[in-house]
Amino acid sequence: MFHDDIIDVAHALADAARVAVLPHFRSAELGAENKLTEGWDPVTVADREAEAAMRAILRKRRPDDGVFGEEFGLQEGRSGLTWVLDPIDGTRAFLSGAPTWGVLIAVSDANGPIYGLIDQPYIGERFEGGMGRATLSGPHGARALGVRGDRPLAEATLMTTFPEVGSPAEAAVFAAVGRQARLTRYGLDCYAYALLAAGQIDLVIEAGLNAYDIQAPIAVIEAAGGIVTDWRGGPAHEGGRVIAAAGAEQHAAALAILSGVE
Amino acid sequence: MFHDDIIDVAHALADAARVAVLPHFRSAELGAENKLTEGWDPVTVADREAEAAMRAILRKRRPDDGVFGEEFGLQEGRSGLTWVLDPIDGTRAFLSGAPTWGVLIAVSDANGPIYGLIDQPYIGERFEGGMGRATLSGPHGARALGVRGDRPLAEATLMTTFPEVGSPAEAAVFAAVGRQARLTRYGLDCYAYALLAAGQIDLVIEAGLNAYDIQAPIAVIEAAGGIVTDWRGGPAHEGGRVIAAAGAEQHAAALAILSGVE
Repeated sequence: MFHDDIIDVAHALADAARVAVLPHFRSAELGAENKLTEGWDPVTVADREAEAAMRAILRKRRPDDGVFGEEFGLQEGRSGLTWVLDPIDGTRAFLSGAPTWGVLIAVSDANGPIYGLIDQPYIGERFEGGMGRATLSGPHGARALGVRGDRPLAEATLMTTFPEVGSPAEAAVFAAVGRQARLTRYGLDCYAYALLAAGQIDLVIEAGLNAYDIQAPIAVIEAAGGIVTDWRGGPAHEGGRVIAAAGAEQHAAALAILSGVE
Repeated sequence: MFHDDIIDVAHALADAARVAVLPHFRSAELGAENKLTEGWDPVTVADREAEAAMRAILRKRRPDDGVFGEEFGLQEGRSGLTWVLDPIDGTRAFLSGAPTWGVLIAVSDANGPIYGLIDQPYIGERFEGGMGRATLSGPHGARALGVRGDRPLAEATLMTTFPEVGSPAEAAVFAAVGRQARLTRYGLDCYAYALLAAGQIDLVIEAGLNAYDIQAPIAVIEAAGGIVTDWRGGPAHEGGRVIAAAGAEQHAAALAILSGVE
């Protein structure tokens, strides 16, 4: 009952976000503001409408839970559970028309995420994990998620969002991992974590993440049998420097390099 | 009649390629051979099956046309038309599970492509251009393709497949363009050209392309009002160094930098 209701609400949120976001995707009228004084981190109307739609559902169906969202911040709850929302992870992909952004929804307790969902509205794909589930449903049906398991770093496929991962020191250790991996790919934002949970790739390494960027991926990947930690092997659900791995072997090999960063 | 038959056959080829390729996408059994002695350019079973399926249709329906495909090379024709096929453009994306690879189909005469089609089977998206058409059909319906038009390089979004575009000299001029653009994104292979034709981005710059990598994108982008040339402003349909642009302004600004390469 407890689990069923949370899962049901999570899907209702994702459905509402799809309705809010899709009319704006590849729309010529799309506006983007400049959220940061440095750099280029666009916030779109779609972002705000989607988070507002999700919060409206939570107020009605989960009034005792907290909510922490990228756009409208933290609203404390009293149940011990918090919904962690990133209405559009990958705004640069969104603004470029690439269908590799996602809606991130996680449910967390004091120890981190217990359930998570990565939704790609344009493709119509939904990756979910936690509370006994590890499932991908998409345009070609549904199937179980599962990581590919251990393999040597020399045979691993590595993904990250930007070639310029984090600070120069962070970028240097990332590049050192990349030189030992078989293949490095860029630019997929949260979709990279979904591919790891689906057994397609071995490692995702990022820096400078926020909690709402990583909590849903943690739940999905852990449910699929994978590992997500920070660059020293500790918890990653507060964000920062993150490594996700399809097996303990890739994880240990990459961590041996990454942990050398100051 | 002439045009209708060509367009009809092109869609039949794309449909056949979807059937051949999709069972292999995200399949755990996917095999990859090492086609080059240097580097990592996997050829999958899917690649060969898709090209064989397309060639079988052409033998029956367009027996006088030539065929040039990535997998099985050139078969001369006598009609003056050649079908130029890349069954999976973006094999690295394919092997990583990312739905940003595509099936490329072009029809060319002695002067270059007259019709082209970029198909993404997993998403179910098809971009086509030439012979009076410039259309995207996908999971959310059909709409006309059209580039976004002129804008300053400082406001442009730039895409390329690899951060390490081509040789060091090529990479240097690419980076120089990137420093002047607003946003640079990586890793989308042929999907980047499709996004340019759909009005989402401004520039795609690549090096080391083959003819079958670029002929379908040329037809789609030109039909959508865009420009595709080599890095000196000449024809690009033989491959090599290519720039595609959403307007003459971005094209000229980028070309002024790119043409400095030796």
